[in-house]
Amino acid sequence: MPESLPANSVGIVTPLSIAFEQPLDLCSGRTLPRYDLTIETYGELNSSKSNAVLICHALSGHHHAAGYHSMDDKKPGWWDVHIGPGKPIDTNKFFVICLNNLGGCHGSTGPTSTNPETGELYGPDFPIVTVRDWVNSQARLADHFGIKCWAAVVGGSLGGMQAMQWAIDYPERLKHALVIASSPRLTAQNIAFNEVARQAISKDPEFNKGRYFDNDAIPKTGLSLARMIGHITYLSDDGMGSKFGREMRQEKLSFDYNTQFQVESYLRYQGERFSTAFDANTYLLMTKALDYFDPASEYEDDLAKALGQAKCGFLVASFTTDWRFSPERSREITDALVEAGKDVCYAEIESNYGHDAFLISSPRYDAVFAAYMQRVERDMEVPNAS
Amino acid sequence: MPESLPANSVGIVTPLSIAFEQPLDLCSGRTLPRYDLTIETYGELNSSKSNAVLICHALSGHHHAAGYHSMDDKKPGWWDVHIGPGKPIDTNKFFVICLNNLGGCHGSTGPTSTNPETGELYGPDFPIVTVRDWVNSQARLADHFGIKCWAAVVGGSLGGMQAMQWAIDYPERLKHALVIASSPRLTAQNIAFNEVARQAISKDPEFNKGRYFDNDAIPKTGLSLARMIGHITYLSDDGMGSKFGREMRQEKLSFDYNTQFQVESYLRYQGERFSTAFDANTYLLMTKALDYFDPASEYEDDLAKALGQAKCGFLVASFTTDWRFSPERSREITDALVEAGKDVCYAEIESNYGHDAFLISSPRYDAVFAAYMQRVERDMEVPNAS
Repeated sequence: MPESLPANSVGIVTPLSIAFEQPLDLCSGRTLPRYDLTIETYGELNSSKSNAVLICHALSGHHHAAGYHSMDDKKPGWWDVHIGPGKPIDTNKFFVICLNNLGGCHGSTGPTSTNPETGELYGPDFPIVTVRDWVNSQARLADHFGIKCWAAVVGGSLGGMQAMQWAIDYPERLKHALVIASSPRLTAQNIAFNEVARQAISKDPEFNKGRYFDNDAIPKTGLSLARMIGHITYLSDDGMGSKFGREMRQEKLSFDYNTQFQVESYLRYQGERFSTAFDANTYLLMTKALDYFDPASEYEDDLAKALGQAKCGFLVASFTTDWRFSPERSREITDALVEAGKDVCYAEIESNYGHDAFLISSPRYDAVFAAYMQRVERDMEVPNAS
Repeated sequence: MPESLPANSVGIVTPLSIAFEQPLDLCSGRTLPRYDLTIETYGELNSSKSNAVLICHALSGHHHAAGYHSMDDKKPGWWDVHIGPGKPIDTNKFFVICLNNLGGCHGSTGPTSTNPETGELYGPDFPIVTVRDWVNSQARLADHFGIKCWAAVVGGSLGGMQAMQWAIDYPERLKHALVIASSPRLTAQNIAFNEVARQAISKDPEFNKGRYFDNDAIPKTGLSLARMIGHITYLSDDGMGSKFGREMRQEKLSFDYNTQFQVESYLRYQGERFSTAFDANTYLLMTKALDYFDPASEYEDDLAKALGQAKCGFLVASFTTDWRFSPERSREITDALVEAGKDVCYAEIESNYGHDAFLISSPRYDAVFAAYMQRVERDMEVPNAS
C-alpha cells in the first residue's frame, strides 16, 4: 500500500456480516437451517435503489473485491483494477456489493462454520452447493437491501456462471449480466483438472476424510498441489514463457531434484502460500459447483432455451489465450443468446495472460468494460419491461 | 491378443539384456561403473549392417515397441501400429532396435537396480541422466551390433529429443532422424507440469526420500496424481470432449465427492494402474531429462547452430491438437533446420488426439511416415558423404 490511498481507490473498507435466519433449501435436497454472508459494499445506494451492482467471485475468491482493509495492506481487493471512482465499475455511480459465497472460507457460512444442529464444525458435512443455490442466497441478500432489480450482475469465470444463472432464474431482477471468461459448462478436460485437484487433497493423509481440524492439521501438500495445477491452467503457455522462460535459479544445472528453474520455485511458493490461506473442504466444494454447472441440462440440453428465460442485456467477454475457459466457450454462450433473440455484445480480447486476464487491467478490456457499464448506467432508470 | 497373430505383426518377441562393462561418464560429472540395457529387435540386420533403425522411447516408454511377449498378451508393444511387416517401419526391410533407456524401470540399469559399488539398490542415488547420456549409451549399443551408421533414428516426444541429439552429437552415425511430436526444449508450462508431478511424488509420505523399498512401500498416491496430470496433458480438450463429454456414471447428480463423471473414474483408473507398474524414482528422473534438454544452450542459444552439426535428413512431424508439444515447437525445429541448410520435411497432421496422436495410426500420419521410410530405405545403401 502506498502511504496515501490512490485517488481512484474506494479507500479503506470494512467487511460486514449479514445473518439470514430463514432456512435455505438447496439443490441437493438438503436444507441450511440458517447462514451468514460476509460482504463488502462500495459506493452509495441511490434512493430508487436502481444503481446496485452485484459482483460474483470465482473459485478461490471472496468478498474483498476493492479497496484496502487497513493502511498496512500490501494489496487491494482482487478486482480493484475495475472497481472504484472513475474505473469501469464506477463507484461514483454504482452501489457495488461483493460477497463471499456460501461454502466459502472467508466469513460466510461454510465448512469452517459451526453447524447449529450439532454444535460441531461442518467440515466435510457441509452440503455441496450449486451455482443456483448461490444465486438463491444472493437474491435474499438483494431483499435485505431492498434491491428489487440489479443494474447489473457481474462475474468472471465461476462468477460469470452466477451471472448467467441469475439471468435464467430471476429474469425480472437484473437489467444486465456481464459474463467474463466464463463457460456454459465445464469440458471433460476442465472436470479432469478439478478431479486431480480433489484427489490431491482427499488423498493427503492429513485430510482425515475432511476432519483435519480434529487433528489440528491441514492437508497442506494436497492443497498446495491443487493450487499449483490450478495456477498453471490460469496462465497461458506464452504468458508463462514471457514471465519465466527457462530462467534458472543457479547458473548451472544442478543434477539433483531441487528446484532448477524459476518457474518451479514460483509454483512451489504459490502452492505453499495458498495451502495455509484456504480451506480444503471449501476447495472441494467450489470445484464441485463448477463441475455441476450446466444450465442447458434442464432445458433439453438446449443452451438457447435456457438463456431464452433471460430478459436482461448481456456482455460476454473472453481472452484469446485463455485455455481453461476458452473463447470458444464464450462464443457458445453468445451464439445461444443470439439464437434466443437476446441483446448481447461479445468481445474477444487479445491478451497474453490466459484465464487470469479477467483480473488484469488492459486498454481494450478496460474500454469494453467501461463502455458497457455506461450502458448499464443509462438503463438504470428505465422501468422494467415487465 | 487374437488366437492367431495378425499377419502384419512381428509376432512373439523376447527381450534381451546386454551388459556394458565399461564405465560411462555422465553429463552430471558422475560415472556409471557398468550398465545393462534391455532391448528388443525386430527384422533382420543385413550383411552390410546398413538397415538398422533405432527407436527411442518417451517418458513412460520401454523396449517393448512391437509384437507380443506371449500368446496371452492382451496388447502388443506401444508402437505396434507403426512397426511390423508392411507397416511404416517395415520389418521386412529394416532391422529395428528398441531399448529401455538408462534410468528406466523395465530391465535396463536404473533406480531399481543394484549399485555394484554398494551392493544396495540405487533408488534415489541413481544419477540424473540426460538425453545426451542416453545417446552415448545408445552409441555403445550400436557398437555392440557393429552398426556404424543407423539408417534412421526415430522417436516421438522425449524420443524425438534423442533423435535430435543423435544428429548433433554423432552426425556421421545416422542417415535420417525422425522427430515426431517433439520440442527443441520444454516451455515454462511444460516444466511447471513436470514440477507438479515431481512434488506429488516426493511429498507422498510413502516416498521416504526415494527409499520406499526400505519400507516395502510405493508412493502410490503421488505416482497416481503424476500420471493423472500427465494423462490430461497428453490428450486434447476436444479429444477428451469426444471421448467423455459430461457423461455421468449415474443418471443423477450425487451431491457427494464420489466420482460423478466418466472422465473422473477413467482418470482414477489410469492413475492407479500406472502407480503399481512404474517406478517413482524413474518417473522423477525422466521428467528431469525432459526439463534439461536444450541443445541450443551449448550453441549460444542458437538452435540453427546446434542442428547445423547434423548431416542427416530430417522428418519433423507434429499434430494439430497437441498442446504439450505443440506444432509451434516443431516449426521451431523445422525453421532452425532450414536456416542451417539441412534437408527437412515437415508434416503438421490433423488429429483430435493431442500429444498421444504420435502413438496412434491415422491415414495421413501413416502415409507420411511410410513415405519417409521409403526414402530412408533408398538412402540406406548410399555411402556416407563423409
